This record gives sequence, C-alpha cells and structure tokens, in this order.
Amino acid sequence: MTTFDDIGELMRAQAANRRLRDDPIDDDTVLALLDLAAHATTGRPQRCAFVVVRDPDVRHQLARTYRQGWSVYKRVLRSRWSDDALIEDRQWQSDHFEDVPVLVVACMPGRRPLFPAIGAAAFYGAAFPAVQNLLLGAAARGLGASATTLPLWSVWEARRTLGLPRRVTPVSVVALGWPRGPGNRAGAGAPSPLVGNVVHLDRWGHQPFRARRGSDAKDTA
Amino acid sequence: MTTFDDIGELMRAQAANRRLRDDPIDDDTVLALLDLAAHATTGRPQRCAFVVVRDPDVRHQLARTYRQGWSVYKRVLRSRWSDDALIEDRQWQSDHFEDVPVLVVACMPGRRPLFPAIGAAAFYGAAFPAVQNLLLGAAARGLGASATTLPLWSVWEARRTLGLPRRVTPVSVVALGWPRGPGNRAGAGAPSPLVGNVVHLDRWGHQPFRARRGSDAKDTA
Repeated sequence: MTTFDDIGELMRAQAANRRLRDDPIDDDTVLALLDLAAHATTGRPQRCAFVVVRDPDVRHQLARTYRQGWSVYKRVLRSRWSDDALIEDRQWQSDHFEDVPVLVVACMPGRRPLFPAIGAAAFYGAAFPAVQNLLLGAAARGLGASATTLPLWSVWEARRTLGLPRRVTPVSVVALGWPRGPGNRAGAGAPSPLVGNVVHLDRWGHQPFRARRGSDAKDTA
Repeated sequence: MTTFDDIGELMRAQAANRRLRDDPIDDDTVLALLDLAAHATTGRPQRCAFVVVRDPDVRHQLARTYRQGWSVYKRVLRSRWSDDALIEDRQWQSDHFEDVPVLVVACMPGRRPLFPAIGAAAFYGAAFPAVQNLLLGAAARGLGASATTLPLWSVWEARRTLGLPRRVTPVSVVALGWPRGPGNRAGAGAPSPLVGNVVHLDRWGHQPFRARRGSDAKDTA
C-alpha cells in the first residue's frame, strides 16, 4: 500500500513538463492513465469523459488555437508574473504543440452553469480531480505532462474540431509525452509556497502557521 | 519512489468517506496534507489558499448552510440518481456536519470569471487539483475525507462566516476526520466507469476501447 511519504514524494516531484519528445505512447499506457483519471471521486452522476487526440490533423488544429490563445495570454502573464523561465517554457510548448504525441481533452457532460457559483464550482470540481489523477499518474510513469485551457479559448472551435455535441463541454487539455531532458523535476512553474503562508485558521487573516513548512517537507527544504 | 502501481492502488481505493468520527486531528497532520495540496501544479501566479476550520461556532454556521443547500440538492439528486446509499451517506453528513473535526475551505484569490469559459475553467482548475492532492493524501494517511460545495451555496454567507475579503472566492469544502467503520473502501459514490466507455479517440463518438478496462485494473475486476 502506498504510504503517505510515497505519495508526498510524488506530489512534490510532479510539475508541469511542457518540453516533450514526439515519440509515441502506446494505447495501454494512455488507457492505464485514464483509468486513474476515471477513478477520481465525484458526488455527481455526471462523469468526466476524455477525447484522446493522436490524429495529426486534429493536433494541428488544436495547436493553431493554442497559439492564438497564447499570443494574447502571453502578454497578460508577462504583465503579472516576472517568471521568464515559465514564459519561455510555454512559448516552447506553443511552438511545438502539434508534435505532442497525445493530447487528452477532458470533457464534462452538460454546459457549464453560470449561476449559482457553486453550480460552476461543482461542474469544474467533477473534472479537475480527474485531470490531477492523470497528471500524477503520468509523473509516476515517467511521462511529462501539463494541463492547459488555451486550446479551448474558443469553445465553439474546440467543439467543431473534436466533433463534440453541444451538450458536452471541453474543460482542459493535457499534453502527454516522454520528457526531453531530466524529466519531471525540470518542469517550470511557480514555486510551491510555504504551506503556512497559504493556511488561515478559522477565519481569513488568522495565520498562526505562517512561514512553517509541511511537517514532512524537510527533504525539499 | 512511488511506482505507478502504488499510486494506482491508492487512487482506486480513495473514495468519498462522509461518516467520520469527531476525534481531533493534530496540526502536524493537517499541515502535512495541506503541504501536498499546495504542491499541486498551476500555470498561474494565483495560488489556492486554505481556511482550516476547527472553531465550533464556525463549523456550526457552515453546517447550517450545508443543511439548507442539502435540503434542495437532495431533491435534485433523487430525481437524477437512484443511488440510495449515496443519498443516505450525504444525509448522514448533513446531520453531523458540525461534528467533523476539521473542515478545510479551499479559496481562490480573485472573483470567478463568468467569461470567457476558459477563464472560469482556469480559475477552478487552479483550485481542484489542490483539493484532489488533499483527498489523496488523506486516503494515504488513513483519514476519511470528502469534498463538497454545499456549505458555499451562499458565497455572501460563506464570506461573512469565514471573514473572507471580497476578492477571495471560496470554492470547495473538504471534511476531514478519522473514519467510522472500515475506512476508505467504505465510501459511497458512483462506481467508476470502465475506462473504455469514457474514452473517445480523435473525435467524440469514436470509441474503439469501449468496455475495456485500464490495463492495470485487473485486481478490481
């Protein structure tokens, strides 16, 4: 049985890895990952579904939409975040998106509810735990992976590209491939905060654990 | 290092466990879980924050709001889903919500964007991977856990109860406690689908893996 330390090690090592080789990934591996995704718990009858994209034409179309989205989002990100490594990393992904061997599009049955807010939270809350299982499974398998919403900036376009019915909503795209370079630990992204800095007790602003690390985070200190 | 089989075993065993004892959980355990949550990757500068609720008054207020939400959602769920075990399970949670020793409210900086759709997806997509890490960590630690949005049906009320600034949005509440009964495997929820039934290849409706299990799912067959 997986110990708490084991899973902690995996979760701390897992990072968005956007620089991927174009070598293929076999069906068994992809299905084993999606089996983990399908095991994410949900309290709703609706279940996340997945479109596995291998077809070069479909990948090309998603890459084109990604680049359109990135050309705008890049400026937003630059204005808010001075992490050049992350921006270069995403630029690389944008330039090579059609070469990613497998793109998994996580889709939810239904249309996203605008109101109430908890309807929207429950809708996305049934999809992203599956995406997280997929990302963690990929890390455990030695695959590079990252999730992005950019290829979906036009839901209309994404529905057309993937042949999705109007009652199915694409929510996230996971790019999967064997990593270039040293693997998961090389992924660029925001450094994880000290846990005490993002934890409040009972009411917002009461932060007795400020600057404290997770009790088992010594090895990454 | 965690193997793929280890993490698969954990993900398949993890289930919403809503029947919890009221015994306390120490700070070190809660912080270690939240440290895992804080390590979920995100491509955005905004980070999920957590309000850990132990105070009986705050738990009581969240329980009251949960029950109001449940009284409505119960009818919706009954009309769509004939799983009596799940409904009884949630009824039990609704009746005992103030006795849950630790409630973790995952909060995102900012207000949820209504448009574009990918703005909403990216907003919730930065919170629920953290929630999933928390749920998986709890399962590995032997704790019972489940995520719900019901105590947040009135965001206004939740902000008042938790003292949240207007620029902080609560998105999910994780109830944590030592399980009554046999632990994680006893959690009620929708059975996980055969992976082949939720996987489409290249375009929606093309399902060559229908009725196929994940390659490593033999042990749960």
